[in-house]
Amino acid sequence: MKINIFVTLKPGVLDPQGRAIHHALGSLGFEGVGDVRAGKLIEMEVADDTDDQALDAMCRQLLANTVIENYRIERA
Amino acid sequence: MKINIFVTLKPGVLDPQGRAIHHALGSLGFEGVGDVRAGKLIEMEVADDTDDQALDAMCRQLLANTVIENYRIERA
Repeated sequence: MKINIFVTLKPGVLDPQGRAIHHALGSLGFEGVGDVRAGKLIEMEVADDTDDQALDAMCRQLLANTVIENYRIERA
Repeated sequence: MKINIFVTLKPGVLDPQGRAIHHALGSLGFEGVGDVRAGKLIEMEVADDTDDQALDAMCRQLLANTVIENYRIERA
């Protein structure tokens, strides 16, 4: 089973990578770009009997820092 | 308009971050995890009249390295 996990910074957490992208897009002449936030996408192949609880545990223990990051699990 | 851009390594390109995640999940006792690939997610707020061509240009010029990465643009 294919799983996509999206890890994003919580609102209010400073995002230097997003700021750098925003600045660079402006320098390249792209207009109308507002807020930019950079996050992570983790694509995993897991056993079909992997339950939501296990996926949640993976995120909490390893993939996301829940102090500053949110995560979303999507079964592809 | 909110845009999500997913940047992933092309198949066949070595992914040390994905390998490290795979290894760490194994060490933590999670079983049945197969291939893991790490990618990027970029969330942007752009002007409503931004066309697909401009978004494509942003990806090609800055956000993705098209030699080794694929990108997918999603209007949220």
